[in-house]
Formats: sequence, structure tokens, C-alpha cells
Amino acid sequence: MNVHSPRIPVADADLYPTRLPDGEAVIDRPDPVLWSDWSEDAPISRDDAEHYRDKGYLVRRDIFGADEISAMIEASQDLRDHGQAIRAEDLVTEPESDAVRTIFRLDEHSALFDRVSRDERMAGVASFLLGDDVYLHQSRLNYKPGFTGKEFYWHSDFETWHAEDGMPRARAVSASLLLTDNSSLNGPLMLIPGSQGVFVCTAGETPEANHETSLKRQEVGVPSPDILTELAAKAGVDHVAGPAGTVIFFDCNTLHGSNGNITPDPRSNAFFVYNAVSNAIRSPFAAPKARPAYLANRGAPKPIRPVSGRIGG
Amino acid sequence: MNVHSPRIPVADADLYPTRLPDGEAVIDRPDPVLWSDWSEDAPISRDDAEHYRDKGYLVRRDIFGADEISAMIEASQDLRDHGQAIRAEDLVTEPESDAVRTIFRLDEHSALFDRVSRDERMAGVASFLLGDDVYLHQSRLNYKPGFTGKEFYWHSDFETWHAEDGMPRARAVSASLLLTDNSSLNGPLMLIPGSQGVFVCTAGETPEANHETSLKRQEVGVPSPDILTELAAKAGVDHVAGPAGTVIFFDCNTLHGSNGNITPDPRSNAFFVYNAVSNAIRSPFAAPKARPAYLANRGAPKPIRPVSGRIGG
Repeated sequence: MNVHSPRIPVADADLYPTRLPDGEAVIDRPDPVLWSDWSEDAPISRDDAEHYRDKGYLVRRDIFGADEISAMIEASQDLRDHGQAIRAEDLVTEPESDAVRTIFRLDEHSALFDRVSRDERMAGVASFLLGDDVYLHQSRLNYKPGFTGKEFYWHSDFETWHAEDGMPRARAVSASLLLTDNSSLNGPLMLIPGSQGVFVCTAGETPEANHETSLKRQEVGVPSPDILTELAAKAGVDHVAGPAGTVIFFDCNTLHGSNGNITPDPRSNAFFVYNAVSNAIRSPFAAPKARPAYLANRGAPKPIRPVSGRIGG
Repeated sequence: MNVHSPRIPVADADLYPTRLPDGEAVIDRPDPVLWSDWSEDAPISRDDAEHYRDKGYLVRRDIFGADEISAMIEASQDLRDHGQAIRAEDLVTEPESDAVRTIFRLDEHSALFDRVSRDERMAGVASFLLGDDVYLHQSRLNYKPGFTGKEFYWHSDFETWHAEDGMPRARAVSASLLLTDNSSLNGPLMLIPGSQGVFVCTAGETPEANHETSLKRQEVGVPSPDILTELAAKAGVDHVAGPAGTVIFFDCNTLHGSNGNITPDPRSNAFFVYNAVSNAIRSPFAAPKARPAYLANRGAPKPIRPVSGRIGG
């Protein structure tokens, strides 16, 4: 694997200043998006690698078999049915009910999803995109019910991971594995293609224990409507529709969000954040206190050795 | 024009009981949806007439010229820019700002939209669908901004018009004229095809002055998730995407709603409710007091004589 040298030397300097008291700013991203040169050995096509580099995301369809997808859906249903067995700190419920919305540390709560996270179709691709061994920074199961699924406003995950978790560089990738069919109407993932190339240094200081409310509704660390309008004017807003089993890899800095959903169709996915082992987190760059471990794995990075073979069964 | 005889005699009986204290019920609609037999003289094709009858709505594209659409957009912008000149009772603003969300009695506030409402492409089609002369029961300009556009939950307009305005029969049609391009992502109109064929007698009594909150968020008079799931299971959920100038006619009883919208793209439309002159409103069937005139025209029905020719200029 040919790995890009970072364009700038690693240093303790904060390359991504954010939560600025004096208002927002937009800077060019100092890091690459795609950290490997594509070759015949790559686990994805050249077109896919370039799509990821240029648009900040990549959709992988038909990579899992029907039996594997069934096993995942069954495991996710089982986890939600037994939400009361999950430790409270790993659980987020809907604002207006007790319905399970998120289960954190999914890999610890499910042998099957642990296996999924280490699959070469997941971790192997992440490792290629980041040009390094990878480990899990975060994992979770998301469930947005029909009728009352709430919106998730535009944000860069990296902005939060940098500010509140102490992730030094934009060298992480999220993989969202759909567990329900997604249409354009039931709150699909929307992305602003190209937005991965700039870093929006957001305005406003981080409140204490921001994560206690930001997971339900993010109010700090989000770009202004003017910046969003400008970024979306370049190439519009993309969204990903597809059947269960579809996987969306998106760069940690790609601006994304989702609309609420009044349709009867719920939306569920398993979400894995892969970070480069060379990019292990430190102290938060712009928050009074680091977020808890269920949001940001603060242990010594355990590199994943990608595994092959079928899942489940 | 060949007009259907209603299947049941006109009577003072309440054919559409709703706001029931003992829980919801679903009954077959006692009235036709399409009140005219199609003939060569009809203003729409046979396919369009059958689509309206079977799905409860009809999309008309390319019926207005680019210059006409420009004139309408300009007039709507002008109205919103001068919102402070509109009498307060005709104005609804966003819950969290002063931005204009709705201007009622649009035909009274704008000569151009008055003309639009009387156009044969609007009133002429409505008259065919309802098999009668028509008058305006309600008209309004809607504007849903980008980023913060709120959802509108599933409802039948007729349920409210019957319960709170005293509209006796399901013999009215709405025409939504798009003034912005609509995609599947910026809160387009969603409809449950086939739902026009049943009437959901909703549960719960109507509070005093319900309209003061129901226009921002409807909480009474909406079907339960179970009923919605059952109705949507038959033919799914449709939505209408299209450029400005597209017109959606939908039966007064078709269940519809729209998702919130975090995209930068606003959504705006002019909305005209045509009622059959034979269906003039009376006292509310299930509310303590009739809603105000800006929501329900209580004057003697003034039949519209559809006009031809170009709009604006």
C-alpha cells in the first residue's frame, strides 16, 4: 500500500482551531482525504477511490449477501428488544419516549457486529482510505422510528471529535451500514459533496457536558446557514438511498445531516468510526473535559486485523 | 358536463362523524372522489381523471409558461417582503422567528393570485373534478425556509374543514401551485394514495381555538400511526417533486403531510381550496366554534367563472 506523506509535519499545534469566541472561519483542510495511492491491490476500484477523494463519501452496494444482511437485521432487532440489558450510559432514547434510538459500543454488545466491524469489506476498506492500520473510535446502532424520527442538523463529525475528543488530524472515516431500506423520504443520510475539503472553524465555546444534549440536538459546533449555503451551492446536496446492506463510507469531515421522517418507515443503521492508529486521540482541543468512553475510545489503539469470510450463520 | 348523482341523498345527518370521544374509526367514504364523468370536453385527459379518482391526487406539469411562473414568483416575493402590510390575522410566522410562513386570503392580497385562482387551468379543472361550480373556501401563500422548515404531520384537510368549519361533504379539492423547485429532500408534499377512499374518524375532542396551535403543529384530528401504517401499506407513500409552476390537485380527504427540511432550499407554494357551490359550509360538525374567515370563507359562495388567457405581463 502506498501511503501519502502528510503535506505538513505532525506537530502539537492545533491544525483545526474551532469553537472560536470571535466567530466562524473557513480554512483549507491541511490533511489529505484519501491517504493511499490507488493500485491494482486496492480493495475498491479507482473510480470509487476518486469519488471518495472528490466528494467525501463512497457508497458500496451489494457487498454483503442476503443471509449476512438478515443475520445483521436479526441481531439489531434483538439488541433493541433487550435495551434494558444495555448499560444506561450506552443507551440514548427518543426525546419523547423510551424507544431505543442509539446503542453505543455496539461491538462490545454484539459478537456479530464486532465481527462486522473487523470484516475486510469494512475495516479493510477503511484501512485503505486512511493509509494506516485502523481501530474503532466509536461504534453504535442507530434507530430512527417512523412518524417521529427527528432531524439531525448539518455537522462535521471531525469538528466534534477534534474539539471534544482530542482527535488531532482528519484521518478517520465513518462507515454507515444500512439495516433498513432507505428512500429519499425517510430521513436518509444527506451529504454536501466537496465539503470535506474545507474545515469550518465554528463559532461559540463548548458548554460543559455538551454531549448530554448534542446527541439529541446539536447546537454548538455547527456551521452557519451562510456557510452551508455557499458550500452546497458548489455541487448541491447528495443523499444515499438504497436497500438494507448498503454501506456508506464518509470522510470524518464531510458535512452531513438528515431530515426528520414522518413516513411509516423507520431507518436503522450500524455505525462504525475507524481512526488511523497514528491518529490516536489526546486531550480535547476545544472543550473543558473529554467526552466519555462510549463516545470516544480512549484506550490504547488496538489495530484491527481485517478478516475475510461470511458473516453470521 | 355529466355529473354523478351522489350515492346517498343530501341530508342534515353528519355523514363524517369525527373527533370521537371513544376512539378512532375508519369508514368508507360515502361520496365520490371524481364527481364528473370524463368526456372529450373535459379539461384533463382520461388518464389524469382516473389517476385523480384512484390515487386522490393529480400532478399537472407545464401548464403555465415561464413568463407566467416568473410573474407569480415575483408577486409572492413582493408579498413576503411586505409582510408587515398584511393584516395580522392573515399572517403566520415561523415558531422561532418572524419570517413569514403563511399569508391567508391570498386572493384578497394580490391581484395576480386572484387572477391565478380564477384561471381555467385552476378553477376550470377544479370545477370538472367536483362536477359543480366552485368558489374559494381558502387561499394562502406558504413559505417553508431552508434549514429550519418544520414538518407537517399527516392529516386529511377535509377532516378539519368538516369538524371545525362545517363543510358538509367531501366535495372540495386543493390546488397547490409550486413557486420553488421541489426535490424529494426539501419537504415536498407527500400523499398516501388511496387514502381518499376512506374517512378516518379521529379520536379526541376539539379544544377551544384549536386553530391557534394546529396551524403550527396539528395534534387533534390526525389518524393514529396504526391507521397510517395500514393505509400506506397498500400503495406506499407518494411525493411530488417538480419545478416551480407544477400544480398538484388533491382531493380534500387525501392524507398528506411533509417532512421538515434542513437543506438550504426553501419551499413555497400558492394554495387554493375550491369547494363545490352546492357544498357551502354551515356550523362546525365537531368544534365548539367556527374558525375565523381567513381559514374558511363563510360568505355566500361566489361561483368562479373560469377565465382563459395568459397571466401577468
